Parts: sequence; structure tokens; C-alpha cells
Amino acid sequence: MSQSPSLSQLQELNPFLRRHLGPDASEQKAMLDALGVASRSELIEQTVPPGIRLNRPLDLPAALDEQAALAKLAAHAAQNQLWTSLIGMGYHGTLTPTVILRNVLENPGWYTAYTPYQPEIAQGRLEALLNFQQMVIDLTGLALANASLLDEATAAAEAMALAKRVAKSKSNAFFADQHCHPQTLSVLKTRAEGFGFELIVDSVDNLAKHQVFGALLQYPDTHGEVRDLRPLIEQLHKQQALACVAADILSLVVLAPPGELGADVVLGSTQRFGVPMGYGGPHAAYFACRDDFKRAMPGRIIGVSRDARGNTALRMALQTREQHIRREKANSNICTAQVLLANIAGFYAVYHGPEGLLRIAQRVHRLTFILAAGLEAKGIKRLNQHFFDTLTLDVGGTQAAVIESAEAAQINLRILGRGHLGVSLDETCDEATVLRLFDVFLGVDHGLDIATLDQQAHPEGIPGALVRRTPFLAHPVFNLHHSETEMLRYLKQLENKDLALNQSMIPLGSCTMKLNATSEMIPITWPEFANLHPFAPAAQAVGYKAMIDELESWLCAITGFDAICMQPNSGAQGEYAGLMAITRYHRSRKQPLRTLCLIPSSAHGTNPASAQMAGMEVVIVDCDEQGNIDLADLKAKAQAAGERLSCLMVTYPSTHGVYEEGIREICEVIHQHGGQVYMDGANLNAQVGLARPADIGADVSHMNLHKTFCIPHGGGGPGMGPIGVRAHLTPFVASHPVVPVPGLDPNNSAVSAAPWGSASILPISWMYIAMMGPQLADASEVAILSANYLASQLSGAFPVLYRGRNQRVAHECILDLRPLKAQTGISEEDVAKRLMDYGFHAPTMSFPVPGTLMVEPTESESKAELDRFIEAMLAIRAEIAQVQEGNWPAEDNPLKHAPHTLADVLGGWNRPYSLEQGIAPSAHVRQHKYWPAVNRVDNVYGDRNLFCACVPVEAYR
Amino acid sequence: MSQSPSLSQLQELNPFLRRHLGPDASEQKAMLDALGVASRSELIEQTVPPGIRLNRPLDLPAALDEQAALAKLAAHAAQNQLWTSLIGMGYHGTLTPTVILRNVLENPGWYTAYTPYQPEIAQGRLEALLNFQQMVIDLTGLALANASLLDEATAAAEAMALAKRVAKSKSNAFFADQHCHPQTLSVLKTRAEGFGFELIVDSVDNLAKHQVFGALLQYPDTHGEVRDLRPLIEQLHKQQALACVAADILSLVVLAPPGELGADVVLGSTQRFGVPMGYGGPHAAYFACRDDFKRAMPGRIIGVSRDARGNTALRMALQTREQHIRREKANSNICTAQVLLANIAGFYAVYHGPEGLLRIAQRVHRLTFILAAGLEAKGIKRLNQHFFDTLTLDVGGTQAAVIESAEAAQINLRILGRGHLGVSLDETCDEATVLRLFDVFLGVDHGLDIATLDQQAHPEGIPGALVRRTPFLAHPVFNLHHSETEMLRYLKQLENKDLALNQSMIPLGSCTMKLNATSEMIPITWPEFANLHPFAPAAQAVGYKAMIDELESWLCAITGFDAICMQPNSGAQGEYAGLMAITRYHRSRKQPLRTLCLIPSSAHGTNPASAQMAGMEVVIVDCDEQGNIDLADLKAKAQAAGERLSCLMVTYPSTHGVYEEGIREICEVIHQHGGQVYMDGANLNAQVGLARPADIGADVSHMNLHKTFCIPHGGGGPGMGPIGVRAHLTPFVASHPVVPVPGLDPNNSAVSAAPWGSASILPISWMYIAMMGPQLADASEVAILSANYLASQLSGAFPVLYRGRNQRVAHECILDLRPLKAQTGISEEDVAKRLMDYGFHAPTMSFPVPGTLMVEPTESESKAELDRFIEAMLAIRAEIAQVQEGNWPAEDNPLKHAPHTLADVLGGWNRPYSLEQGIAPSAHVRQHKYWPAVNRVDNVYGDRNLFCACVPVEAYR
Repeated sequence: MSQSPSLSQLQELNPFLRRHLGPDASEQKAMLDALGVASRSELIEQTVPPGIRLNRPLDLPAALDEQAALAKLAAHAAQNQLWTSLIGMGYHGTLTPTVILRNVLENPGWYTAYTPYQPEIAQGRLEALLNFQQMVIDLTGLALANASLLDEATAAAEAMALAKRVAKSKSNAFFADQHCHPQTLSVLKTRAEGFGFELIVDSVDNLAKHQVFGALLQYPDTHGEVRDLRPLIEQLHKQQALACVAADILSLVVLAPPGELGADVVLGSTQRFGVPMGYGGPHAAYFACRDDFKRAMPGRIIGVSRDARGNTALRMALQTREQHIRREKANSNICTAQVLLANIAGFYAVYHGPEGLLRIAQRVHRLTFILAAGLEAKGIKRLNQHFFDTLTLDVGGTQAAVIESAEAAQINLRILGRGHLGVSLDETCDEATVLRLFDVFLGVDHGLDIATLDQQAHPEGIPGALVRRTPFLAHPVFNLHHSETEMLRYLKQLENKDLALNQSMIPLGSCTMKLNATSEMIPITWPEFANLHPFAPAAQAVGYKAMIDELESWLCAITGFDAICMQPNSGAQGEYAGLMAITRYHRSRKQPLRTLCLIPSSAHGTNPASAQMAGMEVVIVDCDEQGNIDLADLKAKAQAAGERLSCLMVTYPSTHGVYEEGIREICEVIHQHGGQVYMDGANLNAQVGLARPADIGADVSHMNLHKTFCIPHGGGGPGMGPIGVRAHLTPFVASHPVVPVPGLDPNNSAVSAAPWGSASILPISWMYIAMMGPQLADASEVAILSANYLASQLSGAFPVLYRGRNQRVAHECILDLRPLKAQTGISEEDVAKRLMDYGFHAPTMSFPVPGTLMVEPTESESKAELDRFIEAMLAIRAEIAQVQEGNWPAEDNPLKHAPHTLADVLGGWNRPYSLEQGIAPSAHVRQHKYWPAVNRVDNVYGDRNLFCACVPVEAYR
Repeated sequence: MSQSPSLSQLQELNPFLRRHLGPDASEQKAMLDALGVASRSELIEQTVPPGIRLNRPLDLPAALDEQAALAKLAAHAAQNQLWTSLIGMGYHGTLTPTVILRNVLENPGWYTAYTPYQPEIAQGRLEALLNFQQMVIDLTGLALANASLLDEATAAAEAMALAKRVAKSKSNAFFADQHCHPQTLSVLKTRAEGFGFELIVDSVDNLAKHQVFGALLQYPDTHGEVRDLRPLIEQLHKQQALACVAADILSLVVLAPPGELGADVVLGSTQRFGVPMGYGGPHAAYFACRDDFKRAMPGRIIGVSRDARGNTALRMALQTREQHIRREKANSNICTAQVLLANIAGFYAVYHGPEGLLRIAQRVHRLTFILAAGLEAKGIKRLNQHFFDTLTLDVGGTQAAVIESAEAAQINLRILGRGHLGVSLDETCDEATVLRLFDVFLGVDHGLDIATLDQQAHPEGIPGALVRRTPFLAHPVFNLHHSETEMLRYLKQLENKDLALNQSMIPLGSCTMKLNATSEMIPITWPEFANLHPFAPAAQAVGYKAMIDELESWLCAITGFDAICMQPNSGAQGEYAGLMAITRYHRSRKQPLRTLCLIPSSAHGTNPASAQMAGMEVVIVDCDEQGNIDLADLKAKAQAAGERLSCLMVTYPSTHGVYEEGIREICEVIHQHGGQVYMDGANLNAQVGLARPADIGADVSHMNLHKTFCIPHGGGGPGMGPIGVRAHLTPFVASHPVVPVPGLDPNNSAVSAAPWGSASILPISWMYIAMMGPQLADASEVAILSANYLASQLSGAFPVLYRGRNQRVAHECILDLRPLKAQTGISEEDVAKRLMDYGFHAPTMSFPVPGTLMVEPTESESKAELDRFIEAMLAIRAEIAQVQEGNWPAEDNPLKHAPHTLADVLGGWNRPYSLEQGIAPSAHVRQHKYWPAVNRVDNVYGDRNLFCACVPVEAYR
């Protein structure tokens, strides 16, 4: 025998890499052979313009294996301290029912799903979101709810924008109760600045003194006061202004719903419905409004429609409202929602039902009531007359001593000025919590006991006029699944309807549906990350800081930027945050007139929407026939803008899926005219390790951590969109009113509610980068290899619309269906739906070019899966040929009838093609059939007959 | 407004109870109404004989809610200490790939599945088990493997029994290498005692001196020596004895497979293939043998067969080999396997593939090699000449000092007598581990470094003649799923084929498929429970001890016994352990001739098998027409047995699903004749809180923690079968050679490999009892209510075979299909298969009475689910009527063709019933269709054409 291999021979540079990459070395070789290139580096040389190449390894620590990375992150986590946080301010302790924790939040069947743009294969999560909407409708007392927004603060800002759209008042001023949460006021300030609204923050007592188009009231307010809003709402309505109410979701179980008090819009966070605080997020915000505002409603609305067979089918309603149709005039850029978290909140309501929620809310209230009675008996002055779960107390000169006692008891209180302290109870509190609080406020010799206080009569916390009298959650879905067995099966039934990444490739152009590795996901449910209040003292969040600091330094190394702002909690939020930084930068240089934003015609719809919201004027730059920015047009428009040029927004590689050769020159043109370059990070997955935005010329860019850095899509959120900035922009990024960023002007108001956005999902990206290290470049290269392989195998059947140098595409490619449609009537939608019958999720439809499909395979798909997709696409092309040749009628063929369902099988087969051709057209499908739950959904019917709440059970029969 | 409800009004006695119970109060009311009784207690009075009623609450602590129970258990867990355990002895550190951890071990789709007796709805886990068998075949070099046994020690005992069955040698002696693991020797001793074999434990150098029917060799042996087994095997074969080899599964990756060395049987643990040590279990043992022994092979073998359409289909092969056909002569009682753990080990091999396993094994070996070289260079004497991963070292007088250093470094070594120490490395070890060991053995100034040692040439650890030269894991399944995406999808594909409790009711009589709550499952993967070595010093397992002590005291309170022995790791093991305690008891009283065991004809097959194995003569007691034990026959046979009477084995409530009125008298008869009463705990779910085995008259009983106490079935294991004993039997339960039970005779040899059996799943039962508290009785009552409700709704269509007092059944009922079969030819099997088309798993078929179905709904099924099952059974009855009336031919109807598959749909429908009638006969199924993966499986074909390894991929086309 030869000597056993030495340790160094057995050493693997990066053991996670081969788990993350789909094709192994031999598969990569076969793909390279098919492309006629000798090596991956040769392909990259052919593809990526040499002028932008990084040409050196990323300056990142060496990759850790999965266990080592988990161990390192666990050591960070251990530095966080889990005190009892009674700070409130919109964040509360909650108990995630473990059946939901394990089977939704920790289940790839839910977290790897994509946004339900293809409703036929998303009926499960659409139903879950409809439950969420019904819950919001019931609790707010309004007619319509969406699903969902990013956080309470941005939801408030959306309400302000909606008010401006629909209010009859001609005022340009928006009023906000000074007793709204401070982070809400800060985000309102930012948005008002962008929109050019006047923001009036004042006592509601002074509301009548102002002329406004709308107002935000908080219910209960940030100090816990429960006020009858009717007089205020009447005042607003008298001046034709909108009344918007930010309401605590749990309080609405026992309080009169704001809709019944006359509110036009009600919004808030659903965090405390089972979603861990997570040091600030992610959580789903809710947003409800009167029915007449439905076409102005921001975000996604799930609606009920019917399918091709007339059966009930759900889908996203009114999709054409948004940036798609009038993106230069949009005043919302909301795109990513918080689907996974909205699902959890909705399931929390399903699990507890109306009686369970009532018990929780009454218990929280009763504990607060007992706390209030005890403190009052001992002479501590309460500042809010009425309350649900929050007391604001005047402890005067003893404040420091009480705080010290609280620290000794490991309790976080809300610390207010002038000797005031706040305390908010939640469902994790019990009698012991109240006793600990008595000890903290009164010293241990207080002599109070809970039972005695519980028996005594005291003044009520909730005014009689504000007690809820309307039932809620009467729909069967909230009343059938209260045993764990029933709940588990309901979750499974819904999951089984949907197609997620755990079943097959989701080749969505621009959305980078790559592996969300289990080891990346595990840390997010560690209590040390999950259960921290965002406003907990920094000393309790040392582990979070270490993790975030490292992640920021790594993102700087990857992008070339000088600093990262972690606050934006979606890509669109990142765009907005970046543009606001640019705006502030220009103003600081006394160039406030620089407000013109150039955007190529190929841009994402969110780009012009964000620019609008930042107060910019959008000018569209043409693209040439190759899909590249028309340099002459750009120069002309930059020249014309002159001193008014604020910036260019550009995606790189382009949304057309190519590395534009002229990108450096494009950036230079903008800089020459005094403008800034905003680089949209949607396609960063094709740059990592190969090129860096800052090196190319970008001044600021957001990174979609949910695309490039492995945060799963969660069925349409959460996302994270931190921005990287060059040094000159660093002073202008967002700070936070509660947790100010050291070194920043406190006037840099916030863009999101929480200081670090959705902090609790950052471990996912941390793990990914820690485990990939400098080999992140391999991922980019394989993504490019896979896209070019797909393009080469499919271009004979479907023309690839745009190509870059050497006829290469970047990490995605656009297949042009228009010629075939012209000949046969078969559309890109027909192909998309037909792919479902082959067990695939469709690629991106009609973006950025109508009539096309954009395909992004990512680096995580094996060659076997790519080949299966290619086989399906070629089989579909052959089906189109049958139509072309007249063998099948134009309207009666497998493409037009796609997707096929069990109902088709049972409906009596009477088609010019066989049942097998219809439902199981490939060998793979015959082995592993996935059944779309409904036939093709009728969007027009649904929008004409808008219904956005739970349907009667009979409708499913 | 009225005063808000007080805390005491809001207090819920037991918040978990309504999550565990299926029917809520109103559903229970409706069910009681259907039975014509006013209350649950009235029903129980009608059902349970008053003479055995407990009539007081269980003496258990008040129920904790889910969070409080988790918090209390976490506090226990925190008392365990996770040192680096290099003790070896069959238990090794391992890394569970996180994708397998989350998607198998933590996934109800896998862990709530039942044993694959119904193969059409279990193809996923059958494929996983076939992978396991293929892995074992490849690594051992033998033709046939099973899936799976309980642990290495009992597998060795099964090998001994098999050797006796098949060896031509007439000897009654079995030889075991004295360098087998001590727990293996102990279990062999117990079993040899039961069987009446002579067990010779000696040095293999003396093997030739003995005449034996077989021998067990260990490879590498417990001290790490790697010996060429060929000369020993030749000696054995010369005397027509069997050579059995206990082999370390990881070592087989680099060592010549024992099969190639001539071994007849190879067995061992697959723990280190990704299954956490778990303080002793559960882990799957493997067992492989030559093809000619296949009909003597213990345990379950998965085999390949075909279905009714001729397609490849998997199922359990040779099911008739076992206790079913000759249970009075069985010499194995193995029933529960370790399916969930076998799946994990098999998936570990799928995930790593041959190259990955080789890298792991070579690395472990190389690290050991470097450790050996360094220690040798410094003059420490090694006692084993060759090695794979284990070194036995002679440190002479420094032993105490080295142990102290190891403790300071938090390393557990194996401590041997005479100045010897053992150290075993594993895949979690790295260079740092070896350096720590150098420090421990040599002090910190040793001056050794890994790189230098790695470069130097040293004598090989593995002799040249024993280096593996045969490839392994060549089947595609082990070579396709190495990216995490591919692995995840493979796991999902398999899961999607199977029906588990997360999809619908599994009404298996006697198997109690109740809720396995998430909160019960969460703790088992906490590292503090998962990663402890079973032989770690007690000081490191304080939390385990606290948890086990509490669980034992609670089980005593529930059963009335005086003590619990936690060692048996399955129900059948519990039976065996209990009978051995009885045997030792009689012997202690100088009544060694008491060896006759009475067993009612209705008993589980494991009962007589266990009795056989314990060296008892089985005498069957008749049952009367009502299914009760024929008291006259019992008396006569007890009388006839006289001084030879050892015991009665009796199940209560009976396997016929009734509370026999005479149970107390039955026990008294046995006691009068000097016998002991063994109560089979299979039906304990109908006693908890209502009656107690010890009060009724049992002396010993096992408890199926995987039935009554919520450990999930895992697709056929793990289980746990601890026994409760009355005080007089306490001295006779099993002790353990490595971790002796204080107060017990060390000669009480072991029944299982690990001191507390499958310790790491005990938290499940702990959580269940902690959360239910005295309300455990509610569960029993609702289980009885549900069974009687089912019986009342179904008896019109299918006669209920046996009833007890007031015509009530206990917690299950037997539906008699024989009259219908006689009239129509439709059998119980047809009904079972047809239920699959309605989305249900079949009830128990033909046990305890051929031609019947035994239905146990458990307390966790909602009335809605029960009604759905009733509706399906009534619809099936109507279908039978169609056959009866001649509307459908006897062999061409939905029952005979059941289950229906996609292949039927695609095959061209040509049946006298509609496609809809075939595949979607109910409204529920049309909404939530589950598709069986194959048509009805042909068992006879499979057994005649036995093939028990992975099939070529083409076979699936």
C-alpha cells in the first residue's frame, strides 16, 4: 500500500463551495465544452469587459467550513444578552407557536418560495396572505387591507403619500401627532422632505390650528394613552383631509377599531403576532383603507378571482396600479413585501382564533391594569390616563435609582426625559413580571400581591366608549385549526399547493433564486438573535454589533465602497436611501437644484419610482438596439441637465443581461457633469469577485442581500437593501432617532423603522460570505457559465435578445417570444404557464422587454437541472411548432390550456392532444408530478370584481 | 363596559391540552350526543370496569405551558457539559449535515411517518432504506443487508441467534473476542443466558481451542487493533461455525470489507454517519449476511418488487419469515427498527458520496496516524500495532496525571486498567484536537508540530493486506446529490411520495399514532442532549440525570410501579427485559424450573417471540367468543403448569380493543400459582389516568414511549420500551457493564448497548408529561370517546367484532370484513388500499384477527377528521355494495384496482367506473389529492425474485 494521503493532500480549500455550486467540476467541464471554451477563466475573459475586471482575489478572510462558521457566529450570538425588554415603541415580546416556527419559518417549503406572480403555483401562500388581509380587515374595521408593507414607520409614510393622492384638501402639509413613535416621525420627516410636503409634528390638541391634507394619529399613542379619536377625525374630515391611524395590532382585539371611529387608513406592525423582535426586523406591517381608495393602495393586495374553469382562484390583484403603468409619476416604490412574516402573523391568528387572541389581549391588559393599580396605590404618578398595555410613569428624582434597579433585574424600561419611564407588557409577561416590576419601582418591601390587586375594583384602563363591541375573525379558517394536528395539516396543505426552490429550479431573471443553505438559515432562530429589542442598550447587543461590523467590512471589500448603511430593509428602500444621500450631498455643496435623475429605459420600475419619491425629476435615457445605454443620448441629456443633474441610476450588468462595455465612460460622463452615479445592485451576483461597483464608478449602490447574498425570498419578502457609499457620501446616509449613528448629523432622518433594518436576517448573509470567502468569485463565474450554457442550448429555439462582447450574456438572458407570438398567437405567458406542467416555475415575464422571458439560472443549479429545463423549453418549442403547423388549433392546445390540473383530468378529456401530453409531458414529471392547484387565473375578472378577503368555504367546492 | 376579566378568570388550567386533543369541547359534545351519553365521565363509567378505576387524579406536577416546559427542560440541558469525547467504544462525534438535520430529523414529513407496511404510500422512505441497505452491502462486502437493528450490541446478539439457526456445527457454544466492546459482551451474555447457549469470552488467540457454532470478532477491536481476520474465519469455517464481525462503519471505507475476508455476518452501528451520539441513542445498527442466510435474517429487509402495472415498486420483503408464521419458535423478537436514524445514515452517504466518505475516513485516519507518530516519538508506548482511528496507550504511572490534564482540557479519554488509556478520533477532530492531545499526554513543551509529523514517513496504521481495494457506493444515488440544492430536492422528492401524520389521520390499531407536538420534538436536537457520549462521566450528564429521574418518577406515578428501567430501546426489548427480570427473580427464589409462559391467543407476535428468547416455554391460552381470555382455560393451564409457571403475558386493554372485566381475577390466578404477570404496554394509552397496571395486578410492564408518550414513529423507529417493575423485581432489571446501576448486582447483564437506551429521545416524553400533567387522563378519555364514536358510526356498515361492557370498545375497535369478503371477494386488503385513494393510511390489517381492520383514532384527531374517515369508509362500503349487486365485476372495480395512480390516469382509462370515481372519490380529495406513488405492490413476486439493493435507474422509467 502507498502511504495514506497526508493531511495537506486531504485539505479542502472550501468545503462549502461544492455544496453551494450546482455543477461540479465535471459538469462545468461539459458546459464549457458545449460553449467551446477551454476553461471558466477563458469564458469570463470573453464575457466581462477587461477594463472593469478586479483581477485579484477578494480581500476577505479565508472560507470557514459550515461548522466553523456556525461556531464563530454562535460565539458572536453569545455576546448578546437577553433581558426582559418592556420598552414597547412598536416592538414587543411574543411567543411564536412552535408548530409555526418549525413548519413555516424553518421550512424551505415556505422560505424558499418566490413572490406569487404566478398564482397557479402559489395558491397556498396566497391563501395565507388572504388570511392576513382578513385579519387586518377585521381588526381595523376597514374594508380593504394589503399584504404587506415593510414596517410601521414606512407604512405611515405610505399613508401620508396615499393621503396626498386622494385627499380633496389642497394643503401641502401633513400632520403627525407628536406622540407617534419617534422612528415613525423620523421616517415621515425623510419622506416629507423627498416629496416636498410640510410635516407638522405637534400635539393633537393643536390639530385644529393646522390646514393639512392628512394626519397620522397613534392608537394607543407612544406613551400608552388611549384616546377617543373621533373628535380628531371629524376635524380632519371637515377640512377634507385623511385620518390615518397607526394602531397596535394586539390592542385592536379589545379596542374599538379605528375604522369604526372614522379612520380612513389604519396601519401598524404585526410583529407581536408571533414574529420575534429580531433586533428590529423583519416584521410585516399592515395597511388597511377604505374601499374607495383601493386603486391608490400601496403594496400588494391579494384578491379572489376565478380560473379558466370558473373555480375560485387567488392572485395578486390590481397589479397594474403601480410603477408599471406610470412609473415616472409613482409615489410609492414598494416592491418587496414581508410575505414570510405576514404569513406567520396570519397563521398566529389562525392558530389562536378569536377566543385565543382575546384571552391574550385581555391577559396583557389585565396584567398592565394590576401593575397600574399597584403603582398608583404606592403613589407613583401615571401620566397616561387610559391604557392598553403601556404605562408612562413619573418617578421624578428617583429615575436613576429605578433604572439601576431595573438593570439589576435585567429589565429594560423605556427611558424618557424629565423623570419619566415607560413600561409595556406583552404576552410573554406574567404575574412574576409584574412582581419584578413592583420590586424595581418600589423596592422589595412593597407588600403588594397580585391576587389582592386582581380582586380589587379599580378604574378601567380602557374607556367604555372605546371598548371593542364588534366580533372579529369569524371566518372558519380562524376557527378550525386550533389543535396542533389540525394546524400542522393546514400548513402542510397550503405548502403542498406551492412550488418552491426545494422542488425545482426557479429561473427568475433578476431575482437570483440561488441556494439558501440550511447552515445560513439556522442562526436566525437562535434566541440570541431572535429575541432582542431593537432599542435594547448597546451593551446587550455586542454580538449583533460584531456580526454587523464584520458583514459591513466584507460588503465593503466586495463592492469597493467605503461604508455601508444597513438600514434599508428592501432593495427599493436602498434605492431611496441612496438617492436621499445624493440629494443631501448636493444640498451640502449648495447645489440644491441638482434634482434631475437620468434613468435608462431598461431600468426596473422601482428606479423612477424611488427617484420621484426623492423629489427628483426623471429623464429617461434611450437604449440602442443591442440593449445598451445610448451613449450619445446620455451625453446629450447630461449636457442638457447641466447644473440640474443630480444622478444617473444604472443597473450593472444591465437589466438586459449584458455587461455594457461603456459603463466606465457612462459613469465618467455623469461625474463630468457634476452628477452622482447610483448603481442598482439587482445584478450584483454577476459582479462579485469579478468587478466592484465603486471601482467602476458608482458613488452609491444598494445590495440585495436577498438576491446575491442568500437571504431567501420567503414568498415575496423579507429582503434587505443596505447601501454602500463612497467616502464623500458617508456623512449623508440615514441615522436613527432612537439609536443615532455615531458621527452622523442627527438630522439625517431615518428611512426605516429599525436602526439596522431587518437585523435578524443578516446572519444569513454573514454565514454565506464567511463560508464562501474569496471563492465568492467562483459563484459569479458559475452563474455566468450557466447562463451562457442555457443561452447556447436555447437560442436555436428562442432567439436570445441581447448579447454582450463575444456574443456572451452575463448571468441571465432574455428569450424573445415575440416572433413566435406573431406567427402563432402563443405568448410568453402561455410558455410560462406551460412550464408549470413540466414542473417548473416560469422565468421573469415581460421584463424588461414585453413579450420576452428572462432566465437566470444562478450558480446553484446543477447541470442536470439546467438540462431538464432546456429539455422542457425545447419540448414546448416543439409544441408551438404543432400550433404553427396547424396540427393543433390556435386556442385549443396544451399551451393555451396550461397549466393543467386535476380538474382537467376529472372534467372529461376532450382535447386535440392526449391527457398525457397535457399533464405529464416529460419523463421527469411522470415520476415527480407537481400539480398546479388551479387552472389559469383570470386577472381581468378578479380586478373587475375585486374581492380581497377570505371567501366562503363553499367557494372552494 | 364591564370590568375587564380578572387574571384568575383568564387563567387556563392547561393550555397545551387543547393543542394536544383533536376534538374541542363542542366537538366532544357532539360525539357524546351521537353516543347517547351525557358526559365524558358517563362514557368512561360505562366503558372502564369500576374495579380497576384509579378514581383520583394522577400524582403529577401541575401542567406547564409549552414555553415554561421548554424553559425548565432547557435548564436541565444546561447542566450537561459538552466536552470533547474521544472515548470511542462504538460512539463517535459526527457532523449531521444541516440539510439532513433540518429536512429529515426536524421534519414531521419524515418523523411522523409510520412503518412502511403499506408500501404504496411509503415509497420515499422505502427508497431511503434501500439506499441504507446498499451502503451496508457495499461497505461490508456481503450480499444482503437489512434496515435496521436497534444497536450494535443487540445486532451482535441477533448474529449469535442467526448463527445458531443456520450453522451446521452442533455446538451449543458461541465465542466472543474479549476485545469486543464491553456492552456488546454484556448483551451477548444476557441473550446467551436466555437461549441457553454457552458464551465463551476469550482472546482470539485461543479461538482454535473451542468448539463453537459461531463467533463474534470486532474489526477494529475495542482497543483499536486492526487484525487480519482471515485466519480466524478459516478456523471457524473449518468447524462449520459462522464468523460474525462487528465492524466500525467508517473504518470500512478504508479497510478491506469483512465480507471479502470471508465473514458470514457483519454488523455494527451507523451512528457516526451523521447521527448524534445522543447519550447512547437512538442510532441504527446495520446487519449484513451472505445471501444464503436471507430467510434467517432478523429485522426488516426492504426489497424491490413490481406493482400491478408492472412498474418497479419497493416494499418490505419476506415479511412472513418472522414471528407471524412460527412465533412460538421465533428466536428474534425484533420489530421496531431505527428507520429515522437509518435514513439519516443513508442520506449521509448520499450526501457525501464515495469520494466524500473516503476523504472523511482518510482524514480521521491521518490525524490518528499523526497522533500516533508524535506520541511514539516521545516514547509513549502504543499497545495496538495497527489502527484506524483508535490508539490504546500505556502511560504507566503517569495515568492519573494524564487524566487530570485531559480533564483540564475538557477531553474525555477512555480509561482502562493498568495504566492504559484509549483515544478515538472522529470527523469532528482536527489538527487542533491532536495538538491538545499532545499537550495532554506530553505537557505543553512537547515541541511537536502537525505539519512536520504530516510530512515524515512513518509505519502505516493499516496493514497493506487490509487496505480496501474494492470500490463502493457506485450507484448513481450516491453520486448525484452532492450540492445542497440537489440534496434538498432529493429529500423533498422522497418525502412527497409518502403519507405521514402531517397530512392525514393514520388510524393504526395498537400503534397510537397521536400528535407528536413540535415543542416535544424541539429539545432532541439541542446540542446539550444530542452531543453527549453515553460513557461520558456522570458529572457531565447532570442534566440528563435530572430529566431521566423526573421522567422515571412520573412514569411510576402513572403506572403504579416502584421503579423504572430505562434501558430497553423498543417495546419488544422491554418485553424481553421484563421476562429476563422475572426469570432472574424465580432463580433467586430457587425456582429455576419456573419457565412456562402463558400467552393468550390474541397476543402480539412479539410476546411469544420474547418468551422464547428468554428461554421460556410458551403455552397459548384460548380466548372466548367475545375475545376475552377464556378464564377456565387459563385456570386449567396455570394449574397444569404448577411449579413450572413463570408468568402470564397479557395486554390491557386487550388487543381486541376491550377492557376485559376479568383482568384482576386473571392476575390473581397467576399469582396464586406462583407466577408473575407481565403486562404488555401497547395499549397503555387507554389506561393513563384511568387505571394503573400495577394496581390491576401487573408485576412488570413495558411502556411504549413511542405510542402512549408521543415519541414519533419515525417511519418505523426509533422507539423506547422502558419497563416498570414492582419492588420485588427491582433487583433483577438490567444493569450496564460500563455504567453500572447503583444497587444492582453487576451480573445483571445488559439488554441494550446504552445505559439508558435511546436517551436523547426521552425529552419528548418528558415534555409531553410535563405539559399534560394530571390532565393526561383527558387524553385517555378522549381516545376512548373517539374510538366509540367511530365504532358507533361505522358498525352499521362494518360489524365491530368485539365489545366490552355496555357494548363499548376501549380506545380502538376491530371492523370485521370477513362477511363482506365471503359475499363479494372484497378483502380487508382491498379496503385498506382503497382508503389510500381517499387520502388515508389504512388501519391495522388482519391483526389480531385475520380478515379485519383495527382502527385506533387516538385523542389527537379532530371530529372533522374522524368524520372524513367515516365518510370514506361509508363510501367504500357503498362501493362494495356495487360489487355485491353485480354492477361492477368482482375483479374490475375501484377496490380491486386500488390504489390508483398517475400511471392509471395516463394508461388509458378503460374501467367500468369513472376516472373520478377511481382517483378522486371525495370532495376532500378533489381539493387535497394525495397520489400514491405506485399501484398495488406484488409481494409474492418480490419474495420470489428477491432483490434488496438499489435498482438501476432505468428501472424507474
